[in-house]
Amino acid sequence: MKDNELRQGGQELIDEWRPGSGARLWVDIQDPQHETLEPLLETRVGFHELAAEDSLSANTLPKYDRFKNYDFFIFRAVDLNLSEHGSQTYKLAAFLGPEFVFTIHRERMQAVENVQARLPSDRRILDNGPDFLLYNVVDQMVDSHFPLLEKIEECVDTLQESIFQNADPRQLDELLHLKRDINILRRVSMPQRELLNQISRGDAQFIQPQFLIYFRDVYDHMFRISETIDVERDLMAATMEAYLSVMANRTNEIMKVLTIFSSIMLPMTVIAGIYGMNFDHMPELHWKYGYPFALGLMAVTAALLLTWFYRKAWVFKPREREPRVRL
Amino acid sequence: MKDNELRQGGQELIDEWRPGSGARLWVDIQDPQHETLEPLLETRVGFHELAAEDSLSANTLPKYDRFKNYDFFIFRAVDLNLSEHGSQTYKLAAFLGPEFVFTIHRERMQAVENVQARLPSDRRILDNGPDFLLYNVVDQMVDSHFPLLEKIEECVDTLQESIFQNADPRQLDELLHLKRDINILRRVSMPQRELLNQISRGDAQFIQPQFLIYFRDVYDHMFRISETIDVERDLMAATMEAYLSVMANRTNEIMKVLTIFSSIMLPMTVIAGIYGMNFDHMPELHWKYGYPFALGLMAVTAALLLTWFYRKAWVFKPREREPRVRL
Amino acid sequence: MKDNELRQGGQELIDEWRPGSGARLWVDIQDPQHETLEPLLETRVGFHELAAEDSLSANTLPKYDRFKNYDFFIFRAVDLNLSEHGSQTYKLAAFLGPEFVFTIHRERMQAVENVQARLPSDRRILDNGPDFLLYNVVDQMVDSHFPLLEKIEECVDTLQESIFQNADPRQLDELLHLKRDINILRRVSMPQRELLNQISRGDAQFIQPQFLIYFRDVYDHMFRISETIDVERDLMAATMEAYLSVMANRTNEIMKVLTIFSSIMLPMTVIAGIYGMNFDHMPELHWKYGYPFALGLMAVTAALLLTWFYRKAWVFKPREREPRVRL
Amino acid sequence: MKDNELRQGGQELIDEWRPGSGARLWVDIQDPQHETLEPLLETRVGFHELAAEDSLSANTLPKYDRFKNYDFFIFRAVDLNLSEHGSQTYKLAAFLGPEFVFTIHRERMQAVENVQARLPSDRRILDNGPDFLLYNVVDQMVDSHFPLLEKIEECVDTLQESIFQNADPRQLDELLHLKRDINILRRVSMPQRELLNQISRGDAQFIQPQFLIYFRDVYDHMFRISETIDVERDLMAATMEAYLSVMANRTNEIMKVLTIFSSIMLPMTVIAGIYGMNFDHMPELHWKYGYPFALGLMAVTAALLLTWFYRKAWVFKPREREPRVRL
Amino acid sequence: MKDNELRQGGQELIDEWRPGSGARLWVDIQDPQHETLEPLLETRVGFHELAAEDSLSANTLPKYDRFKNYDFFIFRAVDLNLSEHGSQTYKLAAFLGPEFVFTIHRERMQAVENVQARLPSDRRILDNGPDFLLYNVVDQMVDSHFPLLEKIEECVDTLQESIFQNADPRQLDELLHLKRDINILRRVSMPQRELLNQISRGDAQFIQPQFLIYFRDVYDHMFRISETIDVERDLMAATMEAYLSVMANRTNEIMKVLTIFSSIMLPMTVIAGIYGMNFDHMPELHWKYGYPFALGLMAVTAALLLTWFYRKAWVFKPREREPRVRL
Repeated sequence: MKDNELRQGGQELIDEWRPGSGARLWVDIQDPQHETLEPLLETRVGFHELAAEDSLSANTLPKYDRFKNYDFFIFRAVDLNLSEHGSQTYKLAAFLGPEFVFTIHRERMQAVENVQARLPSDRRILDNGPDFLLYNVVDQMVDSHFPLLEKIEECVDTLQESIFQNADPRQLDELLHLKRDINILRRVSMPQRELLNQISRGDAQFIQPQFLIYFRDVYDHMFRISETIDVERDLMAATMEAYLSVMANRTNEIMKVLTIFSSIMLPMTVIAGIYGMNFDHMPELHWKYGYPFALGLMAVTAALLLTWFYRKAWVFKPREREPRVRL
Repeated sequence: MKDNELRQGGQELIDEWRPGSGARLWVDIQDPQHETLEPLLETRVGFHELAAEDSLSANTLPKYDRFKNYDFFIFRAVDLNLSEHGSQTYKLAAFLGPEFVFTIHRERMQAVENVQARLPSDRRILDNGPDFLLYNVVDQMVDSHFPLLEKIEECVDTLQESIFQNADPRQLDELLHLKRDINILRRVSMPQRELLNQISRGDAQFIQPQFLIYFRDVYDHMFRISETIDVERDLMAATMEAYLSVMANRTNEIMKVLTIFSSIMLPMTVIAGIYGMNFDHMPELHWKYGYPFALGLMAVTAALLLTWFYRKAWVFKPREREPRVRL
Repeated sequence: MKDNELRQGGQELIDEWRPGSGARLWVDIQDPQHETLEPLLETRVGFHELAAEDSLSANTLPKYDRFKNYDFFIFRAVDLNLSEHGSQTYKLAAFLGPEFVFTIHRERMQAVENVQARLPSDRRILDNGPDFLLYNVVDQMVDSHFPLLEKIEECVDTLQESIFQNADPRQLDELLHLKRDINILRRVSMPQRELLNQISRGDAQFIQPQFLIYFRDVYDHMFRISETIDVERDLMAATMEAYLSVMANRTNEIMKVLTIFSSIMLPMTVIAGIYGMNFDHMPELHWKYGYPFALGLMAVTAALLLTWFYRKAWVFKPREREPRVRL
Repeated sequence: MKDNELRQGGQELIDEWRPGSGARLWVDIQDPQHETLEPLLETRVGFHELAAEDSLSANTLPKYDRFKNYDFFIFRAVDLNLSEHGSQTYKLAAFLGPEFVFTIHRERMQAVENVQARLPSDRRILDNGPDFLLYNVVDQMVDSHFPLLEKIEECVDTLQESIFQNADPRQLDELLHLKRDINILRRVSMPQRELLNQISRGDAQFIQPQFLIYFRDVYDHMFRISETIDVERDLMAATMEAYLSVMANRTNEIMKVLTIFSSIMLPMTVIAGIYGMNFDHMPELHWKYGYPFALGLMAVTAALLLTWFYRKAWVFKPREREPRVRL
Repeated sequence: MKDNELRQGGQELIDEWRPGSGARLWVDIQDPQHETLEPLLETRVGFHELAAEDSLSANTLPKYDRFKNYDFFIFRAVDLNLSEHGSQTYKLAAFLGPEFVFTIHRERMQAVENVQARLPSDRRILDNGPDFLLYNVVDQMVDSHFPLLEKIEECVDTLQESIFQNADPRQLDELLHLKRDINILRRVSMPQRELLNQISRGDAQFIQPQFLIYFRDVYDHMFRISETIDVERDLMAATMEAYLSVMANRTNEIMKVLTIFSSIMLPMTVIAGIYGMNFDHMPELHWKYGYPFALGLMAVTAALLLTWFYRKAWVFKPREREPRVRL
């Protein structure tokens, strides 16, 4: 691409473009109009109707389709700073030919904007052609997962800590939301990883062999991402169990308080009740020290029971902190 | 198929049909009579006895069998609007030859009726032959899963919310039913996904290469469906655990009320009991302010205990809402 | 097999049989004598010692071994009507050659008897040779799983319902037995499914190509069986969890009754205790309406507490039936 | 091996042995001296240093390594009668050449001793060469798993039964130990199964084709073993859950007793307390039948509550034994 | 490498080095400066930019990339003695050519230092070339997992024991940390195992065939490590469940104490209350032995209840130690 620069722009470029003219093109269409764009892609550019449809519809999972004159990809990114309600994933559809790359996405994408910003100054992207440009976009899209995963990791950590301090059903609610988020992320990342594996093995026809290693690198990142997702899922399951265990423990504590109180007070009530009976003949009532005797009886009973509970380690006993096993 | 139109009709078309006559045929048989249809298919049309049997029996899972002159498929759809008791799935058996497609099903199928309705106006289906027609039917059958899955998703969401508000064994019952539904759906969708994968790889002999991409598209939908099913299963498992945790939490709350009441009332009972004793010598009884003293003793005890429970955050303490960790 | 009929009989046929005589044979040996049969099979018929041993020993899992002049199979059936203690599985060993099939089994097998009964009238089996005969036996053996699975399905359903009505550890015990049954069934059905897959792919040398489709059909049944087994396992796990949840719920109910009773009665006891004290100066005791006042105090306390519990939805409040989410 | 017998002995045979002499050798070394044996194996016999090392070190998992002049195997057995602390597994390293087999193991091995005992009388082993001899040893080693598995099966059964009769944390402890045992067994048996699969497919160079079927047979046994292990693991998980459920049930029972006692006694206490009050004006106190009236009041209250509990099926109600669902 | 020794040193060696000079080189760079090293590797030595980057960045998982003139590996070790906060893993990047090996790592690595220490005396490493040297490093890196795993094993054992003795939420906390550690370890060890498998199959171009067996040996170790990790994970899950069960058991014990105390004391309170009533006509009050009669009534009630609890095995009954099922 000596003098004819890679031209970059929106939908309007399509009309000017002539296939086979040797002009290199990056067409990036944001928030596409389904009605006007679909016929344009199909008849003007000649993309297959199914690819055109997939490029415009929501919800499509990452995939690769090979057509005669172009490769068709769907990737997915997570744009943390753009998102308001959690781990929403953003779709990017890409048509890659020997001289052009078309990228279509609904929302603004950080990855696309970053590459657009670097384009003027970075001669390598311009020189290396559309496939290398696509690599740059995809690389940034994949790396967009990392901050989200770190945030999730942090959330799970915070939840675990707060569960051990103060278990509360709201934490469970939170955990279920996190679980849903990570499950959705997983559902998207598994086919994306598979897709990148496919590309890096050389399945796509318009990605030049010398750039496969770059996609292999993106694949490695994606692999690490999906591994991290699995680790987090595991930790969430463990957290749920920890919640249950902490609860069980707390019930134990409450029960102990109740049991100790009842067990100490009930005998005292019985003793008081006995000396409150109205029998004609109750010698103790007439003892000089009958009253202190009764109180003493109560105190002794209470003391004995407290000793018993102490032995059972239910009260007061400062539980010795066992040495923390640290790796 | 210039002038000889694709003819569409029921069982009666079979008799008129002559193989090799070049006439294109779509025979759609609803609610077949096992006794009359099976011999017809076997002897008149020459389908293999096992295929004929499978096309008529219930319960068969999605599959593909290759015969010399035709392909035999079984697909499954979910017709939400026709169903009364949940996620029932509906079977469609299809025999596909170069010039004909036979579809056999017991109940009315939305997918079949939609294609029948579109046939007169949609020249593409008529022009593209039986395999493209079959694609149209299967496409609609697969897409029939989406509303059901959305409904299940909604149900699980509703259940989760209502569990956190007001856990109840009826929700569990509901959850078990949902689980069964989704397990059945999964059991059907896994082989269907495999079947569509097989077709889109070109295994079926009478599906023309240019239409494989269409079946690939259906496969992608099916893939998304089975992924969603797995996500939902996971969420159901988490919901079950959430139920247990909410229950554990509620038990804790009930226990706290009981413990607080008992712990405060029991000492008061003991004090009242003591001063209800009938000993001859109980100086307090004759004090001028003995009665207020006793009441005061009770009040002080209660106040001390309440303070203790307050410190333990068992009563009144407005638990500060920890900042919701939001992705 | 024009005039020389397929002869069918027991061990005695072996002696008469001459390999290569062109005579077609089905030897079915029930309850074999290990000591006499093993040498007979090995030396007289020339089967490999390992195959002969496997055909006679119990516990062997389904498998296929190829020998030079014959194929050796082990299948397993479930004979519900013959069984007394649950999901016992029955072994059938089969030696298949071009002109003979030997079947060996310990117990009476419904599948074998059915085929024997149909033999005289069903010319197709006689005409199609030993491999088709074997298909008929195996087909019936595989289908013998369905009634058992239906029974298990029914049991799990019944258990689930009865757990929601009246949870009881006996149900758990029952569930554990069912789980063991289904696990054993699964252990047997997985290799059998694999075996049938192998056969239907054409691995066995003495099954003619035109009959592979029949074994493919049996494989489809076996596939459905093993899928059903997995669904049932899943449901059992969910049932176990449901049991725990129902228990947790019931504990809650019991705790509520206890808490309500205690919380209402304890303050009344305290009030009664107070006015039962023997202080000299207790003005209320001498009020004209002191007694009704005390009773009123108790009633008011109880009423306040009941209101509180009512607000907490612990008593009486008719919980509105939330609309059942039905797919 | 007409006249030159297979010679069998220990380490001392190595020195006499000359490779290529045509002499057949089985060298069995028990409790090897690492320092003296390793150089002997490496320099005198010419085994690879890594194989020599693996043959002597503990902890190696089952595997197969192919070297130019010999095959190297590691197998593992379980010797129940030799073991004192549970499922210890015993390693046997084997070097197999066309004319020799070297077996090395630390402890006495039943399998080796059995074959040694049979050698003098069993001409087949002597005639068939070292690979058939190895088969005999391995066959016995694999079969050594069965008694252990039966013992584990028995233990799990016993535990399940005793949990339903009398749940106790000691059972849990036992279960955890069993789980560890079976996990270790599993860890060893999976690669051993894979190894036997490899051998029976003909990967080992010095096992003659006609003996592959024998190793296939051992593989089948190993397959059954690893399946049984999985079934047992599943049952242990279910047992753990059963323990929790039985516990939950027992808590329920205890709570019921407490609730019934408290609910009946507390109102009686209140009534007694009321008539123990010292108000001047309490008409009932002066009734002739005031005392029986009070007792009657208590009895009626108690009776009403008991009726209520009876209705709730908390007391006495003989729970009808629901018909045991039996397969 | 007759006279020209393998030279070993740091970054400074790169400048002196001339590719193709026949000089053998081991360059070991510790704590690399990203800014200065990356250009050096890329331009001076000619390594690919992605490999250079990967060799310097943290967090990369084990992998192998093949380049024209060299192999690029990433391995991971665990250095227990260097680590302060648990199972941190350490990265080693290695470039392997026919005449050189470059190793790059951030922290001091025991494995590297051990090999450096052995180099002067161990002629084999010097003679066998860079691939054998790399084997020595990797071998030590893999073996560095064993002490960590033993420590984890010990921790889990200790936790299990202490849970059965004295369950405490701190143990759960500990367990969650262990779980996280082992999950991270697993995430690293799975690709490392895969990588070693790949190498030992001969995928790396500059590892000579005669050394593949050595990498196979390392693979075997890695396999054992990842198996152990799985066993430990399983045990941790079981431990979590055990915690819950122990808790449930303890709740039971506490409840029993409460129930026994309440059930015995409440009737005594009622009896005392009855004879504390102030009715005019209460014959018992005037009996001579009324008081002992009342006390006797209490004693009898208590005795009856204790008997009942004894029968229920709630009190005193020495639970017979069932014979420990030992494998």
